[in-house]
Amino acid sequence: MTLTLQELGEQGLLQRLQAFCPSEIVGDDAAIVTVTPGKRLVVTTDLLVDHVHFSDRTTSPVDVGWRAAAANLSDLAAMGATPLGITVGLALPSTTSVAWVEALYQGLVDCLQSYQVPIVGGDVCRSSVTTIAITAYGEVQPDRVIYRSTAQAGDIILVTGVHGASRAGLELLLHPEQSQSLSIEEQTKFKQAHQRPVPRLDLVPSIGTSLAETGSEFWVAGMDSSDGLADAVLQLCRQSGVGARLERSQLPIPPGLHAWVGIDKAVEWTLYGGEDYELVLCLPPAPAQWLLNTLPGSIASVGVITASLGVLLVDSSGQYPTIELSLDRGFQHFS
Amino acid sequence: MTLTLQELGEQGLLQRLQAFCPSEIVGDDAAIVTVTPGKRLVVTTDLLVDHVHFSDRTTSPVDVGWRAAAANLSDLAAMGATPLGITVGLALPSTTSVAWVEALYQGLVDCLQSYQVPIVGGDVCRSSVTTIAITAYGEVQPDRVIYRSTAQAGDIILVTGVHGASRAGLELLLHPEQSQSLSIEEQTKFKQAHQRPVPRLDLVPSIGTSLAETGSEFWVAGMDSSDGLADAVLQLCRQSGVGARLERSQLPIPPGLHAWVGIDKAVEWTLYGGEDYELVLCLPPAPAQWLLNTLPGSIASVGVITASLGVLLVDSSGQYPTIELSLDRGFQHFS
Repeated sequence: MTLTLQELGEQGLLQRLQAFCPSEIVGDDAAIVTVTPGKRLVVTTDLLVDHVHFSDRTTSPVDVGWRAAAANLSDLAAMGATPLGITVGLALPSTTSVAWVEALYQGLVDCLQSYQVPIVGGDVCRSSVTTIAITAYGEVQPDRVIYRSTAQAGDIILVTGVHGASRAGLELLLHPEQSQSLSIEEQTKFKQAHQRPVPRLDLVPSIGTSLAETGSEFWVAGMDSSDGLADAVLQLCRQSGVGARLERSQLPIPPGLHAWVGIDKAVEWTLYGGEDYELVLCLPPAPAQWLLNTLPGSIASVGVITASLGVLLVDSSGQYPTIELSLDRGFQHFS
Repeated sequence: MTLTLQELGEQGLLQRLQAFCPSEIVGDDAAIVTVTPGKRLVVTTDLLVDHVHFSDRTTSPVDVGWRAAAANLSDLAAMGATPLGITVGLALPSTTSVAWVEALYQGLVDCLQSYQVPIVGGDVCRSSVTTIAITAYGEVQPDRVIYRSTAQAGDIILVTGVHGASRAGLELLLHPEQSQSLSIEEQTKFKQAHQRPVPRLDLVPSIGTSLAETGSEFWVAGMDSSDGLADAVLQLCRQSGVGARLERSQLPIPPGLHAWVGIDKAVEWTLYGGEDYELVLCLPPAPAQWLLNTLPGSIASVGVITASLGVLLVDSSGQYPTIELSLDRGFQHFS
């Protein structure tokens, strides 16, 4: 027999979940977190709803947990912050199995523990729809915050990793029969990108170093690409009052994707696929070049920020016409 | 025609909601909050689900917002903390009217603005069930944190305000026909207690003062009474490894309640009604007496902490037998 929440009750569930949290900081009305004096607190919050953000069809509870943690840590990385902790609110049907909830927590902890980030508290209640509310806390030096609104004409646009791999992984999970032309390695890589995205906290210190090494002032704009690469560039440009020119040949298309789905779909997924949780950064040429030289496999230039508005995808070879990107193609809720 | 979220879209809704937030701290991947150097960050998170925690039958959206903010600020007060900001996650059916969401935000802001607390960020997404996730941030001096686990035998148990008034207000809202024997003032007071509870942040500074004035060390245990007065005393005792003796004649029954519903129900609602968002504090006799003398209308003694386990409700007059209180009578989710 599967033990459900109805049988275990709220207190029983809370007791089980405390096994995933450091004992000294939970069990009170609120949790206590230490922020380094002089640093600013960074907070980000996300709601994940069953059948909107995840589904048992493509995502096991342990992966739902991992992805929820990764998305929030990615938001902290996008601000230049170091994580301090997360809180977890769960609204669950009373028929939910306790094993499902514990697997969700295991996924959260699996992702968090690489960064020594604790779950510092939470709330559970019943609902007819499984809903996960995560809030993540981090800290950052006040003069090292990465905003969306500070991109300037002439900045190089750098992206970490590849884009479109998560979308490709989703396709494989939904339609396993389409995998035939892919190697096992490619299949694993795409599915991993969807189920176990890695927030780019590892690259945050290098951004500061690139500026110090090139004698540049701190002058970085950026965000993460959770809603897609095109969305990130469009948001950065809108909030900074600038435009961008992206070079088609420099798009970070994952290896194997072009051969699998053709160039049109590969470009579409790279621009609009979403959920890659990479960083999109705008910074002056000298530190940008330093990063490109220092981290050649992890970071790539995709274009430049322009004074003229509009985000253009250009093809220097002349094979494809220039197109203007827009937000309409992105993921819209409430539709 | 009522404008719905489906028509407005996510971006349109976010733009409207930004009117309720300070412009300098929203619109990025995460929000930046300043914590006073040397103070600890305090975080608390709550999920509110339609038909579990609120209902259009008894609660307008503006009151839902107020209550959500008040519940979280009350958790901060219960830790001895001063609020810094909140984040708001909303999962909403696409048929929700924009006016409903704006009224919810208005209620949040109405409650928050008495304490100069900003909404620093949030998330919106669609769901079939309206769900509100609030996380509140506060700060506290490390040696002034109020925990649940530090009550000691001999402590006086103080409570702020009255208890059971919120439960009485709920009854009036559900059954307006039962209000006949109550004065208009009493009706208003009970309904107000349910719809517009006031977190007791106002009393937090007095706790520190009571200790300083009486030369006591900081030695206060406490929590808020969101799940009822009995629940608060039981939780404090369980986590501190002590017991308590509550005096029946000293229970903080709201004026008019006994005459309205009889003594048995009045005692039951006072002990188990919940949602009064008052503070339950355990501290040594000298500072407790100082608080009772200084704040005679706002704070009352209801009993003492005992070395022997168990929470007893005793009647010194001998009219009622001693009874032992238990958590079973309290509000259980997942049932």
